[in-house]
Parts: sequence; structure tokens; C-alpha cells
Amino acid sequence: SKSYSITLLPGDGIGPEVISVAKNVLNFAGSLEGIEFSFQEMPMGGSALDLIGVPLPEETLSAAKQSDAVLLGAIGGYKWDRNEKHLKPETGLLQLRAGLEVFANLRPTTVFPQLVDASTLKKEVAEGVDLMVVRELTGGIYFGKPRGFDTDDTGEEIGYNTEVYASHEVDRIARVAFETARKRYGKLCSVDKANVLEASMLWRKRVTAIATEYPDVELSHMYVDNAAMQLIRDPKQFDTIVTNNIFGDILSDEASMITGSIGMLPSASLGAKGPGLFEPIHGSAPDIAGQDKANPLATILSAAMLLKYGLGEENAAKRIENAVLDALNKGFRTGDIFSAGNKLVGCKEMGEEILKSV
Amino acid sequence: SKSYSITLLPGDGIGPEVISVAKNVLNFAGSLEGIEFSFQEMPMGGSALDLIGVPLPEETLSAAKQSDAVLLGAIGGYKWDRNEKHLKPETGLLQLRAGLEVFANLRPTTVFPQLVDASTLKKEVAEGVDLMVVRELTGGIYFGKPRGFDTDDTGEEIGYNTEVYASHEVDRIARVAFETARKRYGKLCSVDKANVLEASMLWRKRVTAIATEYPDVELSHMYVDNAAMQLIRDPKQFDTIVTNNIFGDILSDEASMITGSIGMLPSASLGAKGPGLFEPIHGSAPDIAGQDKANPLATILSAAMLLKYGLGEENAAKRIENAVLDALNKGFRTGDIFSAGNKLVGCKEMGEEILKSV
Ligand SMILES: CC(C)[C@H](C(=O)O)[C@@H](O)C(=O)O
Ligand SMILES: CC(C)[C@H](C(=O)O)[C@@H](O)C(=O)O
Repeated sequence: SKSYSITLLPGDGIGPEVISVAKNVLNFAGSLEGIEFSFQEMPMGGSALDLIGVPLPEETLSAAKQSDAVLLGAIGGYKWDRNEKHLKPETGLLQLRAGLEVFANLRPTTVFPQLVDASTLKKEVAEGVDLMVVRELTGGIYFGKPRGFDTDDTGEEIGYNTEVYASHEVDRIARVAFETARKRYGKLCSVDKANVLEASMLWRKRVTAIATEYPDVELSHMYVDNAAMQLIRDPKQFDTIVTNNIFGDILSDEASMITGSIGMLPSASLGAKGPGLFEPIHGSAPDIAGQDKANPLATILSAAMLLKYGLGEENAAKRIENAVLDALNKGFRTGDIFSAGNKLVGCKEMGEEILKSV
Repeated sequence: SKSYSITLLPGDGIGPEVISVAKNVLNFAGSLEGIEFSFQEMPMGGSALDLIGVPLPEETLSAAKQSDAVLLGAIGGYKWDRNEKHLKPETGLLQLRAGLEVFANLRPTTVFPQLVDASTLKKEVAEGVDLMVVRELTGGIYFGKPRGFDTDDTGEEIGYNTEVYASHEVDRIARVAFETARKRYGKLCSVDKANVLEASMLWRKRVTAIATEYPDVELSHMYVDNAAMQLIRDPKQFDTIVTNNIFGDILSDEASMITGSIGMLPSASLGAKGPGLFEPIHGSAPDIAGQDKANPLATILSAAMLLKYGLGEENAAKRIENAVLDALNKGFRTGDIFSAGNKLVGCKEMGEEILKSV
């Protein structure tokens, strides 16, 4: 029987609750496919700051690196919001992405038919939306140097960052995006600001060059401001979107809100080798933490992505995805996705319902 | 009687058509308030490229600088899309903004009750939206240096840009935003990415400092990814938004699409002194150019902003705004905003209807 080691990073707020439920689901789905897991829980984010004084302890990163996949809950909270930069939970997350070299962030936006009414978009616009944002995750303005504060000639303070991409960084994320589009509906839209930015001109040139390796995928280009409009005007026009780190941050969050239920959306961050990082796209929701109210489905679906993209265990992944649809069809809803006529459940009970159908 | 000189920059595509109509409306509204205009039409964008070989001829910039206000139609088109950077119509627009030093771009998003059904958002979400994006327009990554292409240590090509803000640049746009919020509903939301970018940290620090001059305005801060979500989830939560050049480009376009009718939305770009630049936010729509199909209302409303923000002629501005509401109430619609039960009109006829109510 196969066995994998999984690093669990519960993090802050509702993180521990959703991770505990998702761990059980992952474990059970694996067992039904002859897969064994060993789990190791490590501190990260605000709770690591409180415990150890840094947002990503060395032991956490090295445990993560040595495992087969990493499942993260959520990080951050009011308590650490005013910390200096190197002591912010978010900095720990950026260090983790860089440390694991997970340059490709896959963020699916799926409107579940059972939840289409939760969208603020009209039903005919939202229903059937099924798109994937492939975001470059370890480059661009997030990591570019030089960066910092300085004084200019006149003694005035300035703050600055560098948006920079090298050819190989664009090439590798483009390949992931073309592969993704090929497995989906065969359409890739590359989003940039090549009418203004040199970094985007290089981006467009390299994406266009890599396209010759994928003649079966239909490539288009769109400016980021237009993409922000088109996601509202007609989100169904998109299959796979590939874009840089900062545009991907903005557009993937915008896209996720089309569903009206961001408690449902998972993500996968992958590198060339080594373990992938899997996490829900929602935050740590400190206001409902510890009350068994959190929606665990985004983390459970992240566990499914872990199986599919991280370990290549498609059957176990399918079990989880189907179990989620099953629970929705049976009318089980946490508070964030509740509507009249359905059954309101807590985080744990939702987990138990999923286990029944895995 | 007062008199003002106006530089008209018709530009490309539908630009000449909407400018011709808006000019008549501006002229007539002025005359009713004892205001005289002298108009000078100058080439800009793709048509200037064809005529003179550059997207912003020197004579155009100096005419604009010497006038009291500048009204621009639209620039760009397929024909010049593949031009080198310095020969792109867009580059001319950036040169014009820099040349006029119009650092404050005001972009109102108003959902007209008559057109609320055009939105892809649910009626209860879209109706009553009335927000203003104040975008920094002459700084940040659009103009930051160093920028360009280079090869790194390994001989690989890189493309790079610099996101940079100096204190005084943030201070002056913050003051415009606080003044704007004060004249509106008293709420200002500053959007940044201060959890990651140093340029945003300085931005947040300076906006917070300037807030002490405006104790009557309620200031909040939001990360750009969250703002992209909140604009879809509940756009009515916003009054005035202030943000940097690139985030403003993305968010103002996203916000405009909430209305479903971007053919209605004007903009104003203002400096510390000198003429302001006024233009519709829509593009040059080359596909319908020359067919008398364009919606001139965004340009007509830009002429109203020119009167109000550029010349301080509030009465004449109000005349135009009311005339637009009147024409909508009477059911006149160009193709882009047409719905059953209304009267389909062309660009010119819409202009004539507006003239009747000015
Ligand atoms: C928390 C923050 C640093 C992070 C990002 O900007 O990448 C988050 O918004 C995300 O998208 O995962
Ligand atoms: C045409 C382009 C350079 C411009 C910009 O990015 O500023 C446009 O998108 C706008 O928002 O006015």
C-alpha cells in the first residue's frame, strides 16, 4: 500500500477547525483507495509568532520540504495586523511559497449549481462559470529587488518595489498554464499590461513563444483593466487565465467573488519538484473562530487538489469532490452558504456528512 | 461675459463623432449661462501617428497647455496595436497626462436608475451605486524608473518596472481624495497592498497622516485584492476610493462595469494648476466608428465635469447633467444601452435630444 507524509499547517482563526475536518476526510478517502497518510502538524502564521516569535519557524519549513504535500488552513488576524513587516503572518506565507518554490498557483472558480443564488451576479451570468486562474506566485513585484524605503535628492521619503520577470520565470508558468488549459477546455487567456509595462511586454513575448509548443490550445491576450471588466460582464468567456503575481492576486479574488461563496474555493501551489502547497482561498475569519461555524468545504476541496495535483491520486480526489456535491445536494449548508429550505450545520457536522459519502 | 478656450482632441475611432456632439452641447449650455468658448481641434493618438508620425505632437501638447481645459474623445485601434512602444497611441495619452501634470484622475461610477437592468449584477446590488475612484495618474509603476529590458547574470532576458511613490505625491492625491469625499458622503477608502509592498506602506502612512487635516471624513484602508471582491459583493459600501495608478486602472474599470453601461461614464484628470483633461472612460470602438452608432453621453458628461471641475461653472454643468437624465427619462437610447420599450437613436440624434433639454 502507498503511503505519503502530509504537513498540516492549521494556522490562525478558523484554520485549526477546518484543517481538523479536512484531515479526517483526506485520511478516509485515502484509506478507501489503499493509501496511508502520516500527518505532522506544525506552527505557522500568527500562532507561530505567539509561540516561537517568527511567522514561519525553520522547523516548519524543513518539515514541509521533507513531506509529500502541505495542507494549510488560514493565517492572520487583527492581533498581528500592526506588526512590522518581518513579523507579519503574511510574511510567513510568502516565505513558505518561496521556500517551497511553488511558482504556480492554481485557483479554480466554480459556481456550484446548488449555490448559484449566492452570487451577486444575475443567475444567467453566474451559472456555469468554471474558470481557472493560474497565477505566478514566486516572482514579480512580491519578491523583486531593489525594494524598500529611501530619501530622494530633495530629502523626501520614497517607498519602492520592483516588478521584474526573467524569461525562464514566464516560460515555466506559461507551460503550467498551457498544460492546464489543455486538460480543461483548450482556451488560455494571458493577462498583462503590455501597453504600458516592459515587464508585461516580456511576459507577452514569452507566452507567445511558448504557445508554439501547444498548437492545440487557443491563446488570447487581454489587458488587466479589461480583464477586470470582462470577469463581471461575462465570466463564462474564460477557461484558463494566466497572469503575474500581483494581477493574479487581484483577479483571482475578483473571480472568486463571482461565486458569492468563497467558503467553497480551494487552491493549489505547485513547483517543478518537491511538495505542493494546498489551501482554501478564504481568510482566517477571526470573528467566528472557535465557534464551529466555519465552512470546511474549501479546505476539503483543497485536500482533493492535494490528491489530484500533489500526489496524482485522481481516484481519491474524485471521491472527495463527489462527496462535496453529495452533501450540497442533500441540502447541508454552513452559515455562510445557508439559504431557506436547507439544513444548517456546523463545521464538524459538515465534515461528518462528507465522510458518509466519500 | 466670460470666455474660455477649449482644446478638443477627437482622437480615433468613434472619438470624432462623440466630440462633435459634446462640443455642441458644451457650447450651448455655456451660452445659456453667459459663457463663451473658443475651440481648437488638435490631432492626437493614432490619427496623429498617421498624420505627423507621433502619438502626441508638440503642437498638440502646447495648445492643450495654453487652453483652459482639454476634452478628449478616445484613442487607439487595431491598426496601431503592434506599434513599438513610443509609437503607440497609448503612449501619447501617457505623455499628455504627464505633460499636463494631471495627477488626480476622478472616475465616478453611477448606476442610472433608468439603466439598472443593463448591469450583470442583481438589481438590489447595483441600484443606487454611486462611488468615485480617485486614481493617482502621473506616478507609480506607469512612470517609475528604472524600467526597461536587460540581461541578468546568466545572460537571460528580463523586463522590469519600478513602482515608486514619494511622500508629496501621496499627500497631494490624498488631499484631492479627502476634498472629494467631503463634498460627497464623507467616507474615504484607501486601497493598497501594504501587507506586501513598501510603496504601499508609504502610501498608507501618508494617507493616514493627511487624514488629520480632515477629521470630518471617515477614513478606512483596504487591500487591493479585497477591494476587487468587495466591489462585486457590495459596491454600495463605497463612497470615495483613493488608490495608486495601476490599482486605480484596474479597480476603476471593474467598478465601471458594475453599471453595465460604460458608454455613460465620464472622467476628469486634474493637476495643481493648469488645464484639466476630460474624457469618457470607454475606448475608441473601431468596430462601430463612422456609423453614427456611438453613445455620446459619456463624452457629454465629461463636458459637464469639465465645466464643474475644470472651470468651476457649476450651473452650466448642472444643465448638462439634467439634460442627460431628461433624455434617458424620455426613453432615448443608443444601441449600447437600448432595451425594449425605448427609442433607438444614433449619436447625432442623441445629441439633438440633449440640446433640447439643456
Ligand atoms: C496574504 C497575502 C500576502 C496573500 C497574497 O497577496 O498573495 C493573499 O492575498 C493571497 O492571495 O494568498
Ligand atoms: C490606454 C491606457 C494606457 C490607459 C491606462 O492604463 O491608464 C487606460 O487603460 C486608462 O485607464 O485610461
